[in-house]
Amino acid sequence: MNGKMIGKLLGFLLLLECLFLFPPALISVYDHETEALRALFTTMALSAGTGILLWGCCKKAQRRFYAREGFLITGLGWIVLSAVGALPFWLSGEIPRYIDAFFETVSGFTTTGASILTNVEAMSRGLLFWRSFTHWLGGMGILVFLLAVIPMGKGGYSVHLLRAESPGPSVSKLVPKLRQTAAILYLIYIALTVLNVLFLLAGKVPLFDALCTAFGTAGTGGFGIKNTSMAGYSPYIQTVCTVFMALFGVNFSIYFLILLGKFRQVIRSEEVGLYLAIMLGSMAVITVNIIPLYGGSIRAALHDAAFAVSSIMTTTGFATADFNLWPQLSRTILVMLMVVGACAGSTGGGIKCARIVLLFKSLSARMRQMLHPRSVNLVQFEGRTVESETLQGVNTYMTAYCAIGVVSVLLLSLDNFSLETNLTAVLACLNNIGPGLDMVGPTGNYAMFSPLSKLVLILNMLLGRLEIFPLLIMLSPRTWSRASN
Amino acid sequence: MNGKMIGKLLGFLLLLECLFLFPPALISVYDHETEALRALFTTMALSAGTGILLWGCCKKAQRRFYAREGFLITGLGWIVLSAVGALPFWLSGEIPRYIDAFFETVSGFTTTGASILTNVEAMSRGLLFWRSFTHWLGGMGILVFLLAVIPMGKGGYSVHLLRAESPGPSVSKLVPKLRQTAAILYLIYIALTVLNVLFLLAGKVPLFDALCTAFGTAGTGGFGIKNTSMAGYSPYIQTVCTVFMALFGVNFSIYFLILLGKFRQVIRSEEVGLYLAIMLGSMAVITVNIIPLYGGSIRAALHDAAFAVSSIMTTTGFATADFNLWPQLSRTILVMLMVVGACAGSTGGGIKCARIVLLFKSLSARMRQMLHPRSVNLVQFEGRTVESETLQGVNTYMTAYCAIGVVSVLLLSLDNFSLETNLTAVLACLNNIGPGLDMVGPTGNYAMFSPLSKLVLILNMLLGRLEIFPLLIMLSPRTWSRASN
Repeated sequence: MNGKMIGKLLGFLLLLECLFLFPPALISVYDHETEALRALFTTMALSAGTGILLWGCCKKAQRRFYAREGFLITGLGWIVLSAVGALPFWLSGEIPRYIDAFFETVSGFTTTGASILTNVEAMSRGLLFWRSFTHWLGGMGILVFLLAVIPMGKGGYSVHLLRAESPGPSVSKLVPKLRQTAAILYLIYIALTVLNVLFLLAGKVPLFDALCTAFGTAGTGGFGIKNTSMAGYSPYIQTVCTVFMALFGVNFSIYFLILLGKFRQVIRSEEVGLYLAIMLGSMAVITVNIIPLYGGSIRAALHDAAFAVSSIMTTTGFATADFNLWPQLSRTILVMLMVVGACAGSTGGGIKCARIVLLFKSLSARMRQMLHPRSVNLVQFEGRTVESETLQGVNTYMTAYCAIGVVSVLLLSLDNFSLETNLTAVLACLNNIGPGLDMVGPTGNYAMFSPLSKLVLILNMLLGRLEIFPLLIMLSPRTWSRASN
Repeated sequence: MNGKMIGKLLGFLLLLECLFLFPPALISVYDHETEALRALFTTMALSAGTGILLWGCCKKAQRRFYAREGFLITGLGWIVLSAVGALPFWLSGEIPRYIDAFFETVSGFTTTGASILTNVEAMSRGLLFWRSFTHWLGGMGILVFLLAVIPMGKGGYSVHLLRAESPGPSVSKLVPKLRQTAAILYLIYIALTVLNVLFLLAGKVPLFDALCTAFGTAGTGGFGIKNTSMAGYSPYIQTVCTVFMALFGVNFSIYFLILLGKFRQVIRSEEVGLYLAIMLGSMAVITVNIIPLYGGSIRAALHDAAFAVSSIMTTTGFATADFNLWPQLSRTILVMLMVVGACAGSTGGGIKCARIVLLFKSLSARMRQMLHPRSVNLVQFEGRTVESETLQGVNTYMTAYCAIGVVSVLLLSLDNFSLETNLTAVLACLNNIGPGLDMVGPTGNYAMFSPLSKLVLILNMLLGRLEIFPLLIMLSPRTWSRASN
């Protein structure tokens, strides 16, 4: 194993984190928040110090590394970043227990948005900004950022990093060069975020609110800076959020195609087609279902239904209405949307529409095969034949996904809350959504869970964001055994 | 399509059903139940008449038929048998609405054991016997019975029937000849049932009770003849049930191996190993979990825990205790067991332990592949290399299973009951168990659902028993299109 390369890149990541902590520190300076500032500076010093040390020790690493190192760097990288990122909350005393601070930070970086805080508004503005900023950083991926800014040398080894971190059944490089692909993705991401901030500012929202809300939307994270999430904002702001959440759930390669003017390919995208069909269909059904609760006003019902669907399906998790009180049909649709998730290659979580398409296509191919055993049945997706390697990958992904869900719900049930609470808590964390139903509904939070359950949910969030395998491989004894070195 | 062959075999099935209605009619004669008797005779006449008519019309069918006809005969056969089998309940007026009688009969044949009856003890003994007898008939499979008693001619076409009806990821013939395989399976089935009856009689249970209970146990069905299910019987009887339910959940080829003296192969069976490990493990955990409810008595807790686990995991559904009132951990374990189910090639339902083993083995092979992309990773099961065809089948089965579950829960949610009720009702029907949790728990029943929901659940039971594809293929427009004739 190329241990030095792992150390070197982890050192880089820690240096980057020190840099990322600078904007929140600036805000704390501006607002004279001494406690928060001290915590932030301590963390920055620690992060930079360890980073330089690691980098110095492992400077002479060989460039050559493989899938295993790619998975390990990704898995370890996300855990280290979260462990260090949690320090400001804990050191400042704003979140008294470290496990809670860790939960909150993992929830931030993984763009889950599940919170253990009961009173968000009591936090300092510097740390509130850091909390939302983690969403933005985690959304597009921190290693993708690394790839975009640091030259990794020749040999194509860095594709192992991109493959381990990017969401979806297969990695599609936009341009032949990996570094350019990463840079293009980040530029589109930044441009869309800026656009989102401008639209929010047009609704006369303070700059601080606009930035934090845009971070939560862009990363499809969902941390709000108000106790009522988005319910207190004007209908205009809510609509801006509805639209931008939906936009950030689209595969980013679509925006690249639009920039290139290849509209025909955009229209033909099967994944985006399914994504929009499910989204609009769900909005329509839920609107009809909840009209009675809105005194017969279609407009009001549609407004809240569209927001909830966009928020849940893109796995953002902002809330305007307490959908916990909606009829069972609407609640069940929302639970299903939690599982489906957004498009592959977007900042959203969930199983991803691309996988759903592939699963159904291979099911249909299988049925043809059963009827005509000697026929050849290939699966086509987005105009190309899907390799059986990719199909196998999707299937084993689903197996791992279900197994993790089952074990997690079992462990959570030790706390003796309802099945609906446990099931939706696991789904909300594993799919990086945030709110679930019942006790973890939009008006609830995750504070009541035991430390064991919180650890399970932390692991769920990381597994969900990294699409299971990097962490699973990291935790497997085989990876660390000498025999396979 | 070989339509005549389908007609001919359906005719056979109807004639068989007339024969099967004979024992309950005898009991009604003995007990002077005139209403029930009239209903049974009418049904027998109708069944025999239609059967002879169909057989006469399609007598000259070609012997040659393929997978499609196999699926169609199986799908249609089970629906026709249930539709006719429901008539006695409806004609006698003991179940006033036909949809309810149909639900009850499908629940019987598919060995689900879900009931819409609120007062079982009010029924006539003849129909109560028929209700339990359907479990026994459906358990091993009605087409398997047909194969055992009717010569199908040469050409190996009848394997399409066995393949469509038998549970598990792949069909294993015990002996080269299909007809003998079917006969051996039925002989083992009959022998075990007789043994069960004898053990029950030793506990001083009336013969009628012993027969009905043994039918429910052997088919892993779960229809009781008391309103309290098995709670009113002595601990000895309950223990006999616990043991025999577990025995009927074992792959029947194991019993064949035991008869042949091949004990080494028996001990090496990976599926039975997993089955016993999950069963004993769950019993242990639930016992510890519910001890406080039993005033600290380990023995009492173990007695009820063992019964519940054996009943749920084998998908029987008998009940002695109301596990709806147990702590969340025990309830969650039971929900998981519902999904796992018994062994392939047994009378039990669920996903089957063999599929679980295969899913995890292919997951592990996939992880090895990800770490070492150029290595060859074959999946071994029960000492043989599994064909990728079989693995693909398991994966698409899981996809179809999940999709059906999702759509069913959505449709049930229109009735506005709790998520726990809807989810466990679907799981209990799709896995042919019977009771679920909340409103469909051991003390509840399915009477309150709307006709639409009942239809959905009926379809779930059939899909579960026939392992999805025969029905799915029957319902697919492609099957009926002229182009693929």
